[in-house]
Amino acid sequence: MDYAGFFRSELDALRESGNYRHFAELERRCGAFPRAQFHGGPAADEVTIWCSNDYLGMGQHPDVLAAMHEALDTTGAGAGGTRNISGTTHAHVLLEAELADLHGKEAALLFTSGYVSNWATLGTLGARIPGLTILSDSLNHASMIEGIRHSRADRVIWAHNDLADLEAKLAALPLDAPKLIAFESVYSMDGDIAPIAAICDLAERYNAMTYLDEVHAVGLYGPRGGGIAEREGLMDRITVIEGTLGKAFGVMGGYIAASADLCDFIRSHASGFIFTTALPPAVAAGALASVRHLKASGAERAAHQDRVANLRARLDEIGLPHQENPSHIIPVMVGCPVKCKYITDRLLADYGIYIQPINYPTVPKGTERLRITPSPVHSAAQTDQLVGALEELWAQCQLARLPMAAQ
Amino acid sequence: MDYAGFFRSELDALRESGNYRHFAELERRCGAFPRAQFHGGPAADEVTIWCSNDYLGMGQHPDVLAAMHEALDTTGAGAGGTRNISGTTHAHVLLEAELADLHGKEAALLFTSGYVSNWATLGTLGARIPGLTILSDSLNHASMIEGIRHSRADRVIWAHNDLADLEAKLAALPLDAPKLIAFESVYSMDGDIAPIAAICDLAERYNAMTYLDEVHAVGLYGPRGGGIAEREGLMDRITVIEGTLGKAFGVMGGYIAASADLCDFIRSHASGFIFTTALPPAVAAGALASVRHLKASGAERAAHQDRVANLRARLDEIGLPHQENPSHIIPVMVGCPVKCKYITDRLLADYGIYIQPINYPTVPKGTERLRITPSPVHSAAQTDQLVGALEELWAQCQLARLPMAAQ
Ligand SMILES: Cc1ncc(COP(=O)(O)O)c(C=O)c1O
Ligand SMILES: Cc1ncc(COP(=O)(O)O)c(C=O)c1O
Repeated sequence: MDYAGFFRSELDALRESGNYRHFAELERRCGAFPRAQFHGGPAADEVTIWCSNDYLGMGQHPDVLAAMHEALDTTGAGAGGTRNISGTTHAHVLLEAELADLHGKEAALLFTSGYVSNWATLGTLGARIPGLTILSDSLNHASMIEGIRHSRADRVIWAHNDLADLEAKLAALPLDAPKLIAFESVYSMDGDIAPIAAICDLAERYNAMTYLDEVHAVGLYGPRGGGIAEREGLMDRITVIEGTLGKAFGVMGGYIAASADLCDFIRSHASGFIFTTALPPAVAAGALASVRHLKASGAERAAHQDRVANLRARLDEIGLPHQENPSHIIPVMVGCPVKCKYITDRLLADYGIYIQPINYPTVPKGTERLRITPSPVHSAAQTDQLVGALEELWAQCQLARLPMAAQ
Repeated sequence: MDYAGFFRSELDALRESGNYRHFAELERRCGAFPRAQFHGGPAADEVTIWCSNDYLGMGQHPDVLAAMHEALDTTGAGAGGTRNISGTTHAHVLLEAELADLHGKEAALLFTSGYVSNWATLGTLGARIPGLTILSDSLNHASMIEGIRHSRADRVIWAHNDLADLEAKLAALPLDAPKLIAFESVYSMDGDIAPIAAICDLAERYNAMTYLDEVHAVGLYGPRGGGIAEREGLMDRITVIEGTLGKAFGVMGGYIAASADLCDFIRSHASGFIFTTALPPAVAAGALASVRHLKASGAERAAHQDRVANLRARLDEIGLPHQENPSHIIPVMVGCPVKCKYITDRLLADYGIYIQPINYPTVPKGTERLRITPSPVHSAAQTDQLVGALEELWAQCQLARLPMAAQ
């Protein structure tokens, strides 16, 4: 086989389909988020980021930075080992306790990322609980899908947020057979929210465990930032709550919160937890400071919701179509990878606005979009500029489809 | 099903088998490695770590810490997004270029960990190259095994470091069928080293790609720290070199170095690369400083080898059996999980020496060991103390097996 030829032709095919990804090279300016230096390319030197998942700007919060600086000075750069072999530091233990408390659970377990927490936890539960069937929402995140697939457990996919379909699928299984319902609270790309209470009702009726990915909700919802389940008073009804430290908490890492025995079971058996270097203590310390701050302060959450409502209203004023949803994610649908890329290229080059086009495979083909994430660090002037730019480009695209179609 | 009962009884079974893991809670003292604060338990407050994978003490290197402090101040805590969506920072791009250069390859690709780099790369190659057979060394790391398993490619396991077996298995496959030989340079738990040149000969003869995990070698071997393949002048004969930033480089993260097209192919298709928050810029900056330093400086590598040779000689003097190997890893075999734990408990409680017992599933049952990793930061006095403690405990164990068997 001609290996080099294979890789080249696969990449050519990606390019031809318009699904080849270009990464924008950025350097966020700490203290001046959402502003960033844009490297490479003829575009403006300074840009405003409108698609970050550092939803609250906690990545530049003084408490977070101070905690990381201090941990660097006192404990050094890396953990130096896996959790089992010299890599469990005091910061990890404190953070796990804080996360358990945040979700009202007995315990929490850290992973190197939210991706790994989903993959390793679902992979381990699926592989180790004899006869487990995992009932997975059809729009679950790649990390959950891969974990379930890896586990080789029986998998039943239920229609996205569809309680009737979920119930039909639960009812088709023996009542005493082990089951796990895996779903998200806020879905990342559409911003819709699962009917958590009703799913818990079904789980209880059919004797299923529940696994809830709150990656796009932790820090952002609930009186202490515990997520949608906290806001709705449902945390104690969820078997496993999973979250990330890399989005609203502004740093990096992932975790589960659950019963002490469940966490201990995953800790003892999950390859993706056991056989990898632990998070740097400074990362754990930064995340700890962030979680603590957002537990006590609702100001960031209030400002966040305010900015989101404001941008939605502004988009409505100019008639720009965005998908309605009850969360902080504003998906402006384009529906074509080439057009989506054209608009974002123009935003970057002509307006100094960076929004990554969201194309396949992150979203299904035909649903390409701008995924806009306003945050407390976006000023009124920056919002004005974004709305003005979108208005111009929208008009331009309506009037002038040819230059885009010809790309 | 009684879920809580299931988790409890599984944990009870682990405890009964002696394979339940206790994590030591540590706080390394930056500037005073290998010293650390030990939290929890009645043991000495300050301990000396003899099992860290921060092999050179780079986790406290001033260049690394300065780079991380600076990146925190200029770019903030986290990356704020996946590599594709606002998370590619200047630091990532610089680090990838530096790693490509380190290994003499066209390109490199960063992952959140070495675990994820193995899992995602092998998983993607195996799943996406039609008809690929992966020939996997029988002692490959969990992350490689899981990646291969996940890919569902055909897998052929060859006996550890056994060229005749590898050749027989290659010869049994059609010459033009796609093949990938996956192996490590330094094997983590035994410290033996693969016959890389001979494996490359076979790969060329049978038209196979090669995938080499240099996780326990990068930074440590070769004139610029490129690993065993660099030391032996073989980097250009390896298709994919994989490494970590979390061990000798002292920080966190993983990577592959390979042709530009191969890296681009993985970048475009690997779920574990695409759907996860990028490494914090400060982590990338710290790793970059570490790689750069160890490229230019051989002093740490020389001191490291010196300390290893010295400790081996000291163990020989007192007749303490350790597995011979040509690397920096000193496995002192115990062969029983209970005894292994007893010895390390005593080391910690009575001598303030922390060495994690290495038990199943990290190593096969019956090969439980102390895995000792001397480093340039270990002083002569600390070595004396370790050797003295081991001598006492070894004598005690020979004379008094009953109290241990009774545990
Ligand atoms: C729903 C969901 N779960 C999990 C993850 C993974 O989290 P992390 O970025 O911490 O790996 C993401 C995004 O990255 C996500 O959108
Ligand atoms: C051989 C080998 N490969 C890969 C890894 C994973 O690297 P990381 O710790 O960066 O996840 C490890 C250890 O953790 C290892 O021993």
